[in-house]
Amino acid sequence: MIKAGIIGSTGYAGNELVRLLLQHPETEIVWYGSRSYIDERYASVYRNMFRLVDAVCLDDNMEELAKQADVIFTATPQGFCASMMSEKLLEQAKIIDLSADFRIKDVKVYEEWYKISHKSPGFISEAVYGLCEINREDVKKARLVANPGCYTTCSILTIYPLVKEGLIDPDSIIIDAKSGTSGAGRGAKVANLYCEVNENIKAYGVATHRHTPEIEEQLGYAGGCEVKLNFTPHLVPMNRGILVTAYAALRKSVSEQEVRGAYEKYYKNETFIRLLEKDVPPETRWVEGSNYVDINFKIDSRTGRIIMMGAIDNLVKGAAGQAVQNMNLMFGLPEETGLNQVPMFP
Amino acid sequence: MIKAGIIGSTGYAGNELVRLLLQHPETEIVWYGSRSYIDERYASVYRNMFRLVDAVCLDDNMEELAKQADVIFTATPQGFCASMMSEKLLEQAKIIDLSADFRIKDVKVYEEWYKISHKSPGFISEAVYGLCEINREDVKKARLVANPGCYTTCSILTIYPLVKEGLIDPDSIIIDAKSGTSGAGRGAKVANLYCEVNENIKAYGVATHRHTPEIEEQLGYAGGCEVKLNFTPHLVPMNRGILVTAYAALRKSVSEQEVRGAYEKYYKNETFIRLLEKDVPPETRWVEGSNYVDINFKIDSRTGRIIMMGAIDNLVKGAAGQAVQNMNLMFGLPEETGLNQVPMFP
Amino acid sequence: MIKAGIIGSTGYAGNELVRLLLQHPETEIVWYGSRSYIDERYASVYRNMFRLVDAVCLDDNMEELAKQADVIFTATPQGFCASMMSEKLLEQAKIIDLSADFRIKDVKVYEEWYKISHKSPGFISEAVYGLCEINREDVKKARLVANPGCYTTCSILTIYPLVKEGLIDPDSIIIDAKSGTSGAGRGAKVANLYCEVNENIKAYGVATHRHTPEIEEQLGYAGGCEVKLNFTPHLVPMNRGILVTAYAALRKSVSEQEVRGAYEKYYKNETFIRLLEKDVPPETRWVEGSNYVDINFKIDSRTGRIIMMGAIDNLVKGAAGQAVQNMNLMFGLPEETGLNQVPMFP
Amino acid sequence: MIKAGIIGSTGYAGNELVRLLLQHPETEIVWYGSRSYIDERYASVYRNMFRLVDAVCLDDNMEELAKQADVIFTATPQGFCASMMSEKLLEQAKIIDLSADFRIKDVKVYEEWYKISHKSPGFISEAVYGLCEINREDVKKARLVANPGCYTTCSILTIYPLVKEGLIDPDSIIIDAKSGTSGAGRGAKVANLYCEVNENIKAYGVATHRHTPEIEEQLGYAGGCEVKLNFTPHLVPMNRGILVTAYAALRKSVSEQEVRGAYEKYYKNETFIRLLEKDVPPETRWVEGSNYVDINFKIDSRTGRIIMMGAIDNLVKGAAGQAVQNMNLMFGLPEETGLNQVPMFP
Repeated sequence: MIKAGIIGSTGYAGNELVRLLLQHPETEIVWYGSRSYIDERYASVYRNMFRLVDAVCLDDNMEELAKQADVIFTATPQGFCASMMSEKLLEQAKIIDLSADFRIKDVKVYEEWYKISHKSPGFISEAVYGLCEINREDVKKARLVANPGCYTTCSILTIYPLVKEGLIDPDSIIIDAKSGTSGAGRGAKVANLYCEVNENIKAYGVATHRHTPEIEEQLGYAGGCEVKLNFTPHLVPMNRGILVTAYAALRKSVSEQEVRGAYEKYYKNETFIRLLEKDVPPETRWVEGSNYVDINFKIDSRTGRIIMMGAIDNLVKGAAGQAVQNMNLMFGLPEETGLNQVPMFP
Repeated sequence: MIKAGIIGSTGYAGNELVRLLLQHPETEIVWYGSRSYIDERYASVYRNMFRLVDAVCLDDNMEELAKQADVIFTATPQGFCASMMSEKLLEQAKIIDLSADFRIKDVKVYEEWYKISHKSPGFISEAVYGLCEINREDVKKARLVANPGCYTTCSILTIYPLVKEGLIDPDSIIIDAKSGTSGAGRGAKVANLYCEVNENIKAYGVATHRHTPEIEEQLGYAGGCEVKLNFTPHLVPMNRGILVTAYAALRKSVSEQEVRGAYEKYYKNETFIRLLEKDVPPETRWVEGSNYVDINFKIDSRTGRIIMMGAIDNLVKGAAGQAVQNMNLMFGLPEETGLNQVPMFP
Repeated sequence: MIKAGIIGSTGYAGNELVRLLLQHPETEIVWYGSRSYIDERYASVYRNMFRLVDAVCLDDNMEELAKQADVIFTATPQGFCASMMSEKLLEQAKIIDLSADFRIKDVKVYEEWYKISHKSPGFISEAVYGLCEINREDVKKARLVANPGCYTTCSILTIYPLVKEGLIDPDSIIIDAKSGTSGAGRGAKVANLYCEVNENIKAYGVATHRHTPEIEEQLGYAGGCEVKLNFTPHLVPMNRGILVTAYAALRKSVSEQEVRGAYEKYYKNETFIRLLEKDVPPETRWVEGSNYVDINFKIDSRTGRIIMMGAIDNLVKGAAGQAVQNMNLMFGLPEETGLNQVPMFP
Repeated sequence: MIKAGIIGSTGYAGNELVRLLLQHPETEIVWYGSRSYIDERYASVYRNMFRLVDAVCLDDNMEELAKQADVIFTATPQGFCASMMSEKLLEQAKIIDLSADFRIKDVKVYEEWYKISHKSPGFISEAVYGLCEINREDVKKARLVANPGCYTTCSILTIYPLVKEGLIDPDSIIIDAKSGTSGAGRGAKVANLYCEVNENIKAYGVATHRHTPEIEEQLGYAGGCEVKLNFTPHLVPMNRGILVTAYAALRKSVSEQEVRGAYEKYYKNETFIRLLEKDVPPETRWVEGSNYVDINFKIDSRTGRIIMMGAIDNLVKGAAGQAVQNMNLMFGLPEETGLNQVPMFP
């Protein structure tokens, strides 16, 4: 049994990690870390866990935890994991960081978008960007995995094959993304109250959202060129789900078959990516509770553009599910272990 | 492997059965019946099942199915299962009926509340009322199980120990129940459109809802007396969940300890019933996606009444989950097999 | 023009008062009080008011405001209005208090349920309980009106005629109430976050909610007897609306005609009370945005009980609309002035 | 008093027309037309209108209605109004058509996108496209007004000044739009059931939605050039509201001041257009129930693009409100008459 510890277990992503790890046949949770709820019973913070989790929340103490765990998940605010990182930690336990601390390779870009100075720049190069479908082999060998952001996962996987195969103009990419409200976290803010979110839709972080450089960097690697794109997130009155609607100029005379061929080339054998049938747009409801990414596209010959669409559950493939998938890879388990949840509808 | 067939697989309860059976280690679905979607691919009707179910919907043909299946689930409108029932069928396959056809022992009561004549009254006495926690031993031996209604399951389990132990006045019971909209089914009706249900709450079927006699009959068995009660269902703008708030006059001088003792007497060892801690009211969100029933109570000494509360996921413990639980019992499997879903939040 | 000031204008009830007063032909808002947003533009706190309100939020200073206003609305936490009350204030301006400070005549009951000591018990007897349909004549002469609570308004109006006419047993009353989330206020609490309220229903304050004694006191006046009842509020995932489902034992041989007659006796000429047609249950959506109370009932001859149902918009008839209705009465205006909003659907 | 008749009064837009016209000081509704509910009381179809509307639904008989009405609103499916149009009708009553029949000047474009043949092409040239802020003077003189679509109104008003002033490249426009579910109408379809829409977001009509040519045509007039753009609508789990997020390449060296200046040039004096303050994105909740259009923009200098955002209530400014605004113009009333609803929040 893999001994797993969770730092930041009382956020929504933390709770989802608990849900998945409890059903994982090869793990045991040894630490429920939480700065806000120390000494409270975990099942009092999340009553879905009543009778399933007896543990009491402990401090977010990574050093102590590293002595007891084989793997540490950090579902913490930006900066925390970087401030704790050390060689000693990595010798004791593998680390999967669900924050953005080790996602961006260029530390200046990180500091510019996140407005904090990076406390462990020396570990950035070692960290593997944990988008399993793309970096699988590197993840297998990693000690430190930077688990991708929710918007990022959905955006990159939706666009990647077309950039990689050079079928679209990388300067023309526009990503219009829509997220359920669990992505905003469990912090007590007026903006996230029920009555403020319900019966409303809005854009936020327009032209400034922090997932932008992460998407640009990864698509840049894929295309072998610098990518600058527009990314606009929106808040949708629902609990879970991210939908990405991305637009790009299609290279001249690229056919629908070529596009579909590109997606199939990279995703045909992927367990968690479902390339939908023609004219069936992805919908967040069809992936809820599961680790699936549903993808499709539509070519608009009138404008010469392609519309690429992807849907995930932000808490599963966009956070906890992908973290477990990374863990499976790092520990030599079949990648799907514990991730066979059938999407729940309605 | 148990070969399972589903008649009425394209309703919400049918889809939930598919979700649970796909994750059940001992079953294989051999028939996706559907009157409305014959010859359509099941995964086109429910796209959450894309790549998980390859089958095409077949007719709701129980006779043909009985030749191929070990167990048949009927998630069909009232009257269908009764109209199909025969000794031959029951010799070929065990039947778990999710409709009301065999729930009520007194056929006159059935016909009065459901306004249809019963086509197979001869099988009513054989049918076992499949509320596992109460009729476990009978279910184990049954060929035909009447799977309880969603409101009924939640209402009976919430009240049962207090009636059984004589702690409340059975003539004083009032059940005020609230249900998510999946309970209304997938039929295309104006009343169930998004804009009609959203931002609204209403009572319906006031004093006339068909689950009333089912609750009365079962509580009557428990109390050894005739029970007449008020049952008022309400439609709540959410997908899943039933909350029951029940009121009754407490017998004089019954203490909180005695009440808690009664619940513990019957439910202490039940896997799927969670008796909550003092002053923690059940909430539907904490059981979503799982087979749990969360129960608690509060005594109001000012009025001499007790308020009993229970919460379930109407599609799991209120339909498909309980059906699987019954199947497990009927086939000698551990009762929890395939039902260990951790409640999903948010 | 009546000069109106609002203390606590940045809560949901405060914002609704602003909405109604802006459309009221005889009032002008002279003070937007707010402890939390002093010096911020009101339209930055509530952007629906952009270009409609230019004012900046001022302190919740009742003394200063009283010099400038003809009427003061206090939409503040419990205790605030009582702590400010003085003869001088009442000489300067009429006061309509939307908090509970002056609703309960028995100060001991107030202090017991609200767990605070009353700072101005001397003014309780002068205060008029502002349920316009019942206390209209007293309201007209009042200097200080205690605007009823949202649950209370809906509960009392739904039950009042039957208690008044002695058609039900006052000891048998059970009120099961359901409220939209705006009733919980705009405070930043985890419990009221979108993801905590959405897809959930729960009871709260079971047997201890503070609106209980207010309902009991008023129904006690109506029935000429002490009333002790059960009141259970529930939180529903919707913005607005309260639905009350109340149960009571009907006096022997009371007919449906008698019950309807009792409602008509008191409400036939009421502008804001709509007694619905037989078998049409009230729904919150049909009154949204309006000052209406929709009421109906159903007799269950099987149990001898009556089910009484009422629906209001908690922010209008349950708070701001009723406050404006009281203001109209106090200033000799037609009661409906500024309150002719047609319910908005969907 | 203007005598108004509504053909198709029992759809959501029809009900909203009723709401607005009942509160309009200069109109009287003389005809509640409805194909589906003939002879039913209007207030039974929409119970918000109980005691406000006594009328019974009549047939959608435009000829008979034209004899009695000064103005006819047609809120009917595509093709209906065109099939009824005649010179005689227009001599008897002014007509405001909320369907698409007379919106598109090029009948071939209409027939291509709507897949029906136009029954009255001879009236297309006379019809005025009723986007009041742009075609005000023509509307004043019109007998037949084509009331713009909901997506169209929001899209055009959001983008218009920048195309008109040549600040953006018209070939680069991408419109990503999000709509509440009332836009899908009150037809009984599985796709619009509560459980299908709730907890979900999806794109639909990708690259094929019928509002596309309408937007292109109008922006083409503004820019004096052919416009081909991408328009992708999405269905959002909320009742009301449309949010448009539009992207375009900004002409070189255009400054933020120039962009703001362009918006102010056209909208500064518009009652119903609110140009928001810098960095405040439009949100649908802030316009709910009102005729406002909230607009803002953000320049992304990294990509050289501008993000333009607009929000409306689809049933008010996107349908019934704009229709009333057109009526006011056609009858010489102040444009705001009956349209001073303050946005309702929450």
